[in-house]
Amino acid sequence: MSLASLLALLATAAGPADTSPPSPGQIAQSAPADEWIAIPADELLVMTLAPAAGQTKARRVVIQLMPSPLSGGWVANIRRLAAAHWWDGTSVNRVQDNYVAQWGDATEKKPLPPGLRAMTAGDYTLAWRTLAAASPNLLDPVTARPTDGRLADVYAPRITWYRGFPLATDAAPVASRRAWPIHCYGSVGVGRNLAPDTGSGAELYAVIGHAPRHLDRNIAVIGRVIDGVEQLSSLPRGTGDLGFYEQPAERTTITSVRLASELPAAERPHFAYLSTSGATWPRYVAARQNREPPFFEQPAGAADVCNIPVPVRAEPANR
Amino acid sequence: MSLASLLALLATAAGPADTSPPSPGQIAQSAPADEWIAIPADELLVMTLAPAAGQTKARRVVIQLMPSPLSGGWVANIRRLAAAHWWDGTSVNRVQDNYVAQWGDATEKKPLPPGLRAMTAGDYTLAWRTLAAASPNLLDPVTARPTDGRLADVYAPRITWYRGFPLATDAAPVASRRAWPIHCYGSVGVGRNLAPDTGSGAELYAVIGHAPRHLDRNIAVIGRVIDGVEQLSSLPRGTGDLGFYEQPAERTTITSVRLASELPAAERPHFAYLSTSGATWPRYVAARQNREPPFFEQPAGAADVCNIPVPVRAEPANR
Repeated sequence: MSLASLLALLATAAGPADTSPPSPGQIAQSAPADEWIAIPADELLVMTLAPAAGQTKARRVVIQLMPSPLSGGWVANIRRLAAAHWWDGTSVNRVQDNYVAQWGDATEKKPLPPGLRAMTAGDYTLAWRTLAAASPNLLDPVTARPTDGRLADVYAPRITWYRGFPLATDAAPVASRRAWPIHCYGSVGVGRNLAPDTGSGAELYAVIGHAPRHLDRNIAVIGRVIDGVEQLSSLPRGTGDLGFYEQPAERTTITSVRLASELPAAERPHFAYLSTSGATWPRYVAARQNREPPFFEQPAGAADVCNIPVPVRAEPANR
Repeated sequence: MSLASLLALLATAAGPADTSPPSPGQIAQSAPADEWIAIPADELLVMTLAPAAGQTKARRVVIQLMPSPLSGGWVANIRRLAAAHWWDGTSVNRVQDNYVAQWGDATEKKPLPPGLRAMTAGDYTLAWRTLAAASPNLLDPVTARPTDGRLADVYAPRITWYRGFPLATDAAPVASRRAWPIHCYGSVGVGRNLAPDTGSGAELYAVIGHAPRHLDRNIAVIGRVIDGVEQLSSLPRGTGDLGFYEQPAERTTITSVRLASELPAAERPHFAYLSTSGATWPRYVAARQNREPPFFEQPAGAADVCNIPVPVRAEPANR
């Protein structure tokens, strides 16, 4: 879009004579207040990166951790690592284009705090019944199929959302059904050694490219970046294998990683996500599947699950 | 993956006792020489960006233009704009995270060279028969369905590849079937004003995030970045609406844009892509659908079309 058309579009959207259908973002923003769910402070991880070369401003990345019981063992470890200030002074060591930005202890020698849990590959998925017991509003996974009958996912037979996160499920009946979190742009996962290692949570990565869904059920997904993902996605790419930086000086230093609940009130970020069990959600999904005129003339009639991001917005501290 | 596991993996892959299946990349590299198709020099567009702040090295982006007859009107215009050196001194004006980096004349006042063609929305798709007449090796679009019967695309009923580019088609019989190029990571498209404008090709963007397939059939796709996409994807994001830079000084200057065929021989890049009608291609696709141990334990059994990029490699000038 040109600057001129952008301005024209903005003018149209703001004008009293606007008859174009609302955009997905406008639909989300018009949801009633009770459909915006505040994210608890102990489910927000705040990572601060040292300023870029020649700059003085610290760079902030905010990660929404998966709510219980999703990836529970790893999330518990991450809370412990943050409480121990374990990441302070570590760095972003790998940035591979169209894939991931990864951070942790480049020396691989920093001792981990005591009490971390050990998980297995079985923990990459969880029983649907466990999830249903934790959330009375759990969406039926048949929502994977849009109304026109076209599959909304190539990788899994069914898709749903749980407290702001997309999940895939198998096609088994409820009693034996398994569900698992998936990799979309901005998803945060747990680096690991070769299987059967499943990682502790000390080494993390964020997806900065097309959804690498082949990682689903092979790596733990523990959350998603909801603010400042551009601080990771715009970092210089590493020139070594897999995007590792070849020189230590190329790494970006991590000043601190804290749970928002451990920050002073004045520094604590506040975010909310659009409920996926409210009345607005199906309208938002439909709008993502069929984008609005006047810019779009040919509606797609479908959208893949990673092209239906759950909306998030910053909230005033006192809301 | 940790550094240690990376090194372990590389050691394993190089060792004589390696019994792990080959990766998709290894399969592609092992293809016979005649399955690597040299890209003609007049189908390569070379964009040079001014060095980054504090750097002295120019940044090169190489775009593979779509072969005839795909998006033919826009590609013809782009060749004419490049021959006129029209982009020299223009800039990258918009970088929106998880979406696009866009370039052209920020003033929107630079006169266009004479003789540019005008296209309509009907040109976003083309008749299958036109395509088949141009390529005797055209793949049947039933290749959209992997062997397990799961759809390989959410957006279109059928997928195929044409001379290195993924295409979608409708489900109509051959006589009335339409095909169209699609938006994946790295795809290059034509910026435009509101419909019915279809753009001239003077304003271009590259996809730097999750495949925005909702743009398919709404905007012309004219090629893909095959080298240096990180020069665009790692640019600072614009802080204005839609990722436009708010200050002119934030823009990245384009030093030149040339067809490789117009560059001196010594500066001309040489690239080849893996044939999508050779014996190696189905093996590559299968490996993308089911990634290899020992890192992957749970094969996906599927891959979406944008997660099956057509491999490209630099070639020696004298090959």
